[in-house]
Amino acid sequence: MSIKRLHTNARMSQSVIANGFVFLAGQVATDTAKNVAGQTQEILDKIDALLAESGSDKTKIVQATIWLADHQTFNEMNGVWDAWVPEGNAPARACVESALAFPPYTVEIGVIATV
Amino acid sequence: MSIKRLHTNARMSQSVIANGFVFLAGQVATDTAKNVAGQTQEILDKIDALLAESGSDKTKIVQATIWLADHQTFNEMNGVWDAWVPEGNAPARACVESALAFPPYTVEIGVIATV
Amino acid sequence: MSIKRLHTNARMSQSVIANGFVFLAGQVATDTAKNVAGQTQEILDKIDALLAESGSDKTKIVQATIWLADHQTFNEMNGVWDAWVPEGNAPARACVESALAFPPYTVEIGVIATV
Repeated sequence: MSIKRLHTNARMSQSVIANGFVFLAGQVATDTAKNVAGQTQEILDKIDALLAESGSDKTKIVQATIWLADHQTFNEMNGVWDAWVPEGNAPARACVESALAFPPYTVEIGVIATV
Repeated sequence: MSIKRLHTNARMSQSVIANGFVFLAGQVATDTAKNVAGQTQEILDKIDALLAESGSDKTKIVQATIWLADHQTFNEMNGVWDAWVPEGNAPARACVESALAFPPYTVEIGVIATV
Repeated sequence: MSIKRLHTNARMSQSVIANGFVFLAGQVATDTAKNVAGQTQEILDKIDALLAESGSDKTKIVQATIWLADHQTFNEMNGVWDAWVPEGNAPARACVESALAFPPYTVEIGVIATV
């Protein structure tokens, strides 16, 4: 049983593949000047890229966890999320509020997918 | 490797089955007029029903995450939780506080089980 | 498909092993008089011990979730975390803020590893 890790530094890997699953690190936007919709889109683009590198794609996501810095942005995030989710292949999801590690982040999303 | 999804809409699936595991969406109560104990019971009933539909049951839960809107309701939630957990088969669990996506929700629970 | 549980009581198991993975309960420090760095070290020691009992170790962690009671302690926690992570084997990680179930806790960490 081997584990494959991508984009690994001393703190975390952005992707870890093992036993038929890929676990992505919680993704945040690089451009924190963007609004919630913009940060969400950037995060989903990063997830698409990481899943592709990992031999997976968004039709194979089994679980997503979404942390919002302010739950009042729920609808704004969902507008981008719902458009991105592939029809018929939505993951199990939990969305909760959390002050994020660095305050400029308004959204963070982590996923588990199959490979 | 196939993925089976149950109760899927444009945003999420309530259950996703893959690689011997089932991932449930974070469950919340439908009747938010209930107190924390009542919401917890309703959530656990939903989890029982979803696991049954997914070919699993509460003796097979491996991980549970519980989000409480107010950590001072920890004991009230646990009274219902502890009575529900099957003897000898308690899951690994994390319980943290989070302002939930819709304020009337006081509890949200997500689980991973084997199938 | 069997499930093995360690340190199981009526509420949770500290470790659950199934399908090639081990899921640990969210770990907190026993000595809550310690500062964030001290609590983090105690938690990581507990994770090392539980993984060893479960037939795993920190080089096999695929996902870690870190909840901080105060995100301003991010750097203090990371100082201990970064020194503990085995070179080249960092897990996918998400770190978010959460008022924890019992206020004296300043850090809680949950992990999934392979066995």
